[in-house]
Amino acid sequence: MNIELVTIGTELLLGFTIDTNAAHISRALASVGVRVVRRTTVGDGEAEIRSSVSDALERTGFVITTGGLGPTRDDITKKVLAEIFGLPLDLDEQYLEALRRRFEGMGRGPMPPSNRCQAEMPRGATVLNNQWGTAPGLWLEGKPGIAILLPGVPHEMKMLLEYEVIPRIEGRGKREEGRAKLIRSLTLRTTGIGESALAEKVGEVEERIAPVTLAYLPSVEGVDLRLTAWGADAEGAAQVLERAAGELRPAIAPYWYGDDESDLAAVLLDELRREGRKLAVAESCTGGMLGERITAVPGSSAVFVGGVIAYSDDAKAAELGVAEPLIREHGSVSEPVVQAMVEGVTRKFGVAAGIAITGIAGPDGGTAEKPVGTVWLAAVDGDQIRTVGRRFFGGRQEVRARSVQAGLDLLRRLGAS
Amino acid sequence: MNIELVTIGTELLLGFTIDTNAAHISRALASVGVRVVRRTTVGDGEAEIRSSVSDALERTGFVITTGGLGPTRDDITKKVLAEIFGLPLDLDEQYLEALRRRFEGMGRGPMPPSNRCQAEMPRGATVLNNQWGTAPGLWLEGKPGIAILLPGVPHEMKMLLEYEVIPRIEGRGKREEGRAKLIRSLTLRTTGIGESALAEKVGEVEERIAPVTLAYLPSVEGVDLRLTAWGADAEGAAQVLERAAGELRPAIAPYWYGDDESDLAAVLLDELRREGRKLAVAESCTGGMLGERITAVPGSSAVFVGGVIAYSDDAKAAELGVAEPLIREHGSVSEPVVQAMVEGVTRKFGVAAGIAITGIAGPDGGTAEKPVGTVWLAAVDGDQIRTVGRRFFGGRQEVRARSVQAGLDLLRRLGAS
Repeated sequence: MNIELVTIGTELLLGFTIDTNAAHISRALASVGVRVVRRTTVGDGEAEIRSSVSDALERTGFVITTGGLGPTRDDITKKVLAEIFGLPLDLDEQYLEALRRRFEGMGRGPMPPSNRCQAEMPRGATVLNNQWGTAPGLWLEGKPGIAILLPGVPHEMKMLLEYEVIPRIEGRGKREEGRAKLIRSLTLRTTGIGESALAEKVGEVEERIAPVTLAYLPSVEGVDLRLTAWGADAEGAAQVLERAAGELRPAIAPYWYGDDESDLAAVLLDELRREGRKLAVAESCTGGMLGERITAVPGSSAVFVGGVIAYSDDAKAAELGVAEPLIREHGSVSEPVVQAMVEGVTRKFGVAAGIAITGIAGPDGGTAEKPVGTVWLAAVDGDQIRTVGRRFFGGRQEVRARSVQAGLDLLRRLGAS
Repeated sequence: MNIELVTIGTELLLGFTIDTNAAHISRALASVGVRVVRRTTVGDGEAEIRSSVSDALERTGFVITTGGLGPTRDDITKKVLAEIFGLPLDLDEQYLEALRRRFEGMGRGPMPPSNRCQAEMPRGATVLNNQWGTAPGLWLEGKPGIAILLPGVPHEMKMLLEYEVIPRIEGRGKREEGRAKLIRSLTLRTTGIGESALAEKVGEVEERIAPVTLAYLPSVEGVDLRLTAWGADAEGAAQVLERAAGELRPAIAPYWYGDDESDLAAVLLDELRREGRKLAVAESCTGGMLGERITAVPGSSAVFVGGVIAYSDDAKAAELGVAEPLIREHGSVSEPVVQAMVEGVTRKFGVAAGIAITGIAGPDGGTAEKPVGTVWLAAVDGDQIRTVGRRFFGGRQEVRARSVQAGLDLLRRLGAS
C-alpha cells in the first residue's frame, strides 16, 4: 500500500519548526507495510492545502495530513478537507461536552470559547479519540479516497497514530490479503569511522547481499549502515536482512555497536549492569550533555549514580581534586587533566566505571596549538584506564555531541577489551 | 521570488533521518526575500528524483535539492539533474587533485577510489566550492530554469548556503530590482502558558494588528507567537511588525521572555551577568540536561561555574548535603528536598544563583500520589528562594525538557521580581 503525507503549517514551510512528525509517521507506517512514497509540506493557506491534498489523493487515493486542527484562526485543515470530500460540518454535542469536562479536569478553568470549533465534525467521519489533547483526529472516506487528519502536536499525533490509525490500517491490510508487501529495514550502527572509510570496508560485500540495498547515514553519533529489503513478505524479508547483516558485521567490527534503534548509551549501560559496575561522569565542555544522554535511557538509575559538571577550573580543583599545578602546566584541556578528572569522579562517587570529557567546543577559546574542536576523553573500567585526544569538526553543539558519543564509545571498547 | 525545495533520500522518506536541512534553508532564503512555496521529499530512485525535480521546475523554474551528492552508490542526484538539463558529465582534473590533497591533509590516508565520481561535473555548471566536506555543490542554469544542488550533510549544506548560494541569489535579486518582495517575521516567545489561554489573552489585539498574521507554535519550551508581514518592502515590514509586537507584549507579559531566536537560558545568563551573579545547578531527573542547556550558550562560562548531577539518593546526601531524614520522610521528589538541593549546590560552589530539579520523568517510578511527570523545582537568587511543584505531560524526554525550561523560568522570574 502506498500513501502520501501532507504536512500543513506555514511555520513548517518558513522553517521555524522542524518537521519531526513526518519521520515518525513514515517509520510507523513502514512497520505495517505501508510505504510513504511522497511527502509534501505546504502553508496554512486554503488554496495550498486544497491543491496539495487533492493532488496527493489523485496520485495514491490515500493521504495522511498533520497540523491545522487546533483552536486558533490559522487552523483550517478540517474545513478544507470536509469541502474536498463534500461533507458539511456538524456540531458534535457529545464531543463538546467531553471537551468542556476535560478542560475543567485539567484545572485550567472553563474552556475558552475558541475551542468550540474543535467539536465540529464532517458528517459521517470517524472521530479518532484524542485522549492526549483537545484536537481529535479524523478518518474521512469517500469518492476522493481516504484521508486521515492528525494534529500537529508530536505527542498527540504519535498516540493517535499508534492507538487509532495503525490498528485500522492493519484491519484493512488483512482484508486485501496477499496484496500488502513489506519494506523491512535493519540498521547496523557504527561510530568512530567516516562514511567513505566504512564504504571501503564494506567493499564487495555489497555485491553479495543484493537485492538488499545499502544506505550510509552519517550523523554526530557515527555512520549508520541501513539495509533495506523491498517487497518481500515479512518472514522472507527478515531472513534476507539477517543473512546480509551476518555478512556485513565482521567487515565493520569493532565500529559496530548495535542494530536498529540501539543507543550507544543504552548498550554501555547494559554491559555495565551485567558486570555489576556503577558509573559516574565528570564533564567540562559538554556541561551535562553526557549525563543527559545516559539518563535519557529509562532505568539508567540502576547503573548511573551521578556526576560533576566542572565547568570552571576552580570547580575541577575543588570538586574533582584535579591538582592546580596540573592545570597551570598542561592547561585544562589536556591528557593529565582529563585523567585526573576521571580518577577524581570515580573516587568521589565510589564507583568502578567513569567517563571524563574536557575540550574546547568553541566558537571562542581555541589557540593555534589547541584549536576549537580539541577534546580529551578518559574512561575507567575497574583497574583499566584509557585516555584519547581527538579533534572534532563542526559547530559548538556538534563538537559537544561528538565528544559525548566518543566518551561513551571509549568506555564501551575498554570494557570489551 | 518563489522557490521549491526537493529533499532527496530514501532514509528521509522512510523516516530514519529527520529533515532539519529543509527548515534551515527556508529560514535562510526568507531573509533575502525568497519564499519556499512547497517542499517535496522523495527517495533515492532515479524516476522519483526526475519527476519531482521536473515538476518543481515546471511550477516555479527555481529549485534547491539536498542530498545524494556523496560518494556511495545511492548518490545519483548529480547524474539525474545533469540529464534534466541535458548536460554531459566531465571529469574535473583540478577538482580531483584538490580532493586528493584534502584527503591526505586530513591524515586519513589516500583518497578512496569511490570518491573519484565526486570530481565529475555537469558541463558548464558553476561548482560551489565545499571547504567543509568532499561533495561540492552545483548551480545549474538552462532551459528548465535554475537548480541548486546541495549536499545533505547539515554542516556542509549550511556553509555552502551561506557562502555560495545566498550571495548569488542576492546579486540576482538586485538585477530584478523592485520585484523582490519580502516575508518578514517576528516571534514573541512565551513560556508557562498553554496555547488556548495565550490566544484568549491575545484576544482582540489580533484584529487591530491585521494584516500581520499570527501563528501559535507550541513546543516543550512554551508557545511561540509568530507574527508575519507579507509582501511589504524591508523597511515597511520591520515597522509593521514592531508596531504589532508593541501591541501584543503588554497582553502576554509576564509569559513573554524574548523575541525571535531568544533562548531562555541565554536570556537568564545575560541577566545574571548584568547583576554580577554566578550560577550553579543541582539535577536529579534531568541528569545533566539543565547544565547542557545552559552551556549550549557560547560564553556561558562567564556566569556558569558547574553543578552536581545527583541521580541517586546517596549522591543527594553526600554531594549536596540533603539530610537523609528529609528524603526518608518526604521522598526525593518533594519540596523540602528540592529546597535542600538548591541550598546545597549554591553553598558548595559559593555562588549567589542556583537552580535545582527533582522529579519523576518516567516511564517507571510513578505512584498514585506522585504520578509520572511530578517535578519539584527550586531557584535561589541572592537572598530570595522560591520553590514550585508542577505536573508535566508527555514522555520521559518531554517531561525532562519541560522541567529544564520551567527551572530556567523560575530563576528568571525570581530575578525580575
